[in-house]
Amino acid sequence: MTQENFRRRYESIRRRTDRRLERVRPAPGARRLREGCRYVLDGGGKRVRAVLVILSCESVGGKASRALDAAAAVEILHNFTLVHDDIMDNADARRGRPTVHRKWSVNDALLAGDTLLGAAYEALLETTGSAHRRLAGVLTQGLLDVCEGQSLDLEFEERTDVSVKEYFHMTGKKTGALIATATELGAIVGGGTPSRVAALRRFGLRLGRAFQVQDDLLDIAGDAHDFGKTIGGDILEGKKTYLLLRAAERAEGEDRKLIERILRKEGQALGWKTGDGAVTPSGSAVIAQMKELYARYGVLEDAGKVVERTTNEAMSQLGRLPRTAAREMLRALAEELAHRES
Amino acid sequence: MTQENFRRRYESIRRRTDRRLERVRPAPGARRLREGCRYVLDGGGKRVRAVLVILSCESVGGKASRALDAAAAVEILHNFTLVHDDIMDNADARRGRPTVHRKWSVNDALLAGDTLLGAAYEALLETTGSAHRRLAGVLTQGLLDVCEGQSLDLEFEERTDVSVKEYFHMTGKKTGALIATATELGAIVGGGTPSRVAALRRFGLRLGRAFQVQDDLLDIAGDAHDFGKTIGGDILEGKKTYLLLRAAERAEGEDRKLIERILRKEGQALGWKTGDGAVTPSGSAVIAQMKELYARYGVLEDAGKVVERTTNEAMSQLGRLPRTAAREMLRALAEELAHRES
Repeated sequence: MTQENFRRRYESIRRRTDRRLERVRPAPGARRLREGCRYVLDGGGKRVRAVLVILSCESVGGKASRALDAAAAVEILHNFTLVHDDIMDNADARRGRPTVHRKWSVNDALLAGDTLLGAAYEALLETTGSAHRRLAGVLTQGLLDVCEGQSLDLEFEERTDVSVKEYFHMTGKKTGALIATATELGAIVGGGTPSRVAALRRFGLRLGRAFQVQDDLLDIAGDAHDFGKTIGGDILEGKKTYLLLRAAERAEGEDRKLIERILRKEGQALGWKTGDGAVTPSGSAVIAQMKELYARYGVLEDAGKVVERTTNEAMSQLGRLPRTAAREMLRALAEELAHRES
Repeated sequence: MTQENFRRRYESIRRRTDRRLERVRPAPGARRLREGCRYVLDGGGKRVRAVLVILSCESVGGKASRALDAAAAVEILHNFTLVHDDIMDNADARRGRPTVHRKWSVNDALLAGDTLLGAAYEALLETTGSAHRRLAGVLTQGLLDVCEGQSLDLEFEERTDVSVKEYFHMTGKKTGALIATATELGAIVGGGTPSRVAALRRFGLRLGRAFQVQDDLLDIAGDAHDFGKTIGGDILEGKKTYLLLRAAERAEGEDRKLIERILRKEGQALGWKTGDGAVTPSGSAVIAQMKELYARYGVLEDAGKVVERTTNEAMSQLGRLPRTAAREMLRALAEELAHRES
């Protein structure tokens, strides 16, 4: 599949999803709530999860049109998590715009999230067919997993002894679960056999893991302009990324001391950022030191291998599916996500 | 039906619901989240909505055991709304215990609410039978209505010109919708005919309205000890109750000026409460004045009539059901709620 064919098909699915999302009309009788929800849904994004629902449906022989409601449901559920996570992280911006709680208020964002959750189920239940119990069960499990992952993430923030194993467990819930929800729902709607549904779920879980580690890598390797956030931001915030936790296992002496300062989130006290979030010269020095440290302990190389290996594990699941254009699209999408630079 | 029989049967259903709720195990892998959710579910309460689900099921000929999952679902959904509403209202206590966001944090309460929502769907989907799409649709509509009602309530807080009609619209969503969700779900699970399902939904809506106006009345008429909150608290907070809005329509001169001060929430500036929420002598004077004003303009009498009339409207819906013990229980429960003193 050529890059151009991939891009064209991806955009076509993304546009279809956007049109389906335009039909979502939450809280018709409450102006502010309705505006908050529409603000979120109109905020764009790559709609990766929706595209995964539709391609998974097609890859087991289903029609894309049957999967549109489920695709919208997963995308709305994803947006619900962003709205509530942004409250919890006290984030100011998302996709280049103020977050909902900044633009309105925490209360409005809380309610917009809750409403989006209702809208996700509403969209899912519009799916034709008779698998609603199963579909709603998968969406619900996705919701419960995401909440559990987010809660573990909050617990981890207060700890300095998180292991790489715990990291994978947490991100598997926080990031992987929703991607697996997408591929599983698509496979069910498409009428996939149990073994194909299971294969597509595993594909989603492995893809989610590759996606997350690549995300961690991009924090220090990405292009600041494209990525829209500070290079090294995770380091200054003491975020427990794959890189930091793997380095913590290996580092000794002065290296170890620096990592512990980061794990204890001493950046603020040590003036690594100004009040409005700009990186100070001492912050830049820490990022440079950590980048060098990551390279020296082989952590960057190691992370690259994890991305490569889990992407391959994901791909191998696709071998259980018939040869179709949709399967090639899933393969190309996995490649794209593993090698993305923003 | 004797009061004793009613009480015995009610307690039996409540205990069954509590046992079903004990089986709910949210967030098994995240300790703090799991504890937060269990704290909410173990907090007791009258379980009115769960009892309504089960009685509605029985009143159309279904077995109580088939409605237990739906009863748990509605009760969990109700508890989700309490956790998130308490965040929005910045409430310190609920059922005599600290609220979740006080005991843990706002982030923990936010996530506990989201998780409970997932647990509600999970419980509902355990219902035997084949009506899951319809059941999940009714639960989802209940969720969306409650969010819309809560958002309107927040909008009303910033306005001084809310009409009684708008009040009924808002509380119909915020309070009535979930009670109607309970009776409708019970009727569906019980295999009720479309006209009986519709009758039980209307029963729930009218009951919800009576319940809300009685709640407003109890703020100034209730026994402070039993009710567990300050008598006249709604007045000092400028809450747009039926009483205040009806009085605002009728009052003139000095009476009107006092009501406008309350509608503009000037209580804090005028020192009606101390910093820790105790009522000051000037606050007590305002409550006494308002009580007299409500009586003089016939607002108390009027509210009593609304409770009476809407309870009767609710009861009349029961005439569409066969004569059963469950129907008599619903009638007795409606009586009980309309005349409750706490």
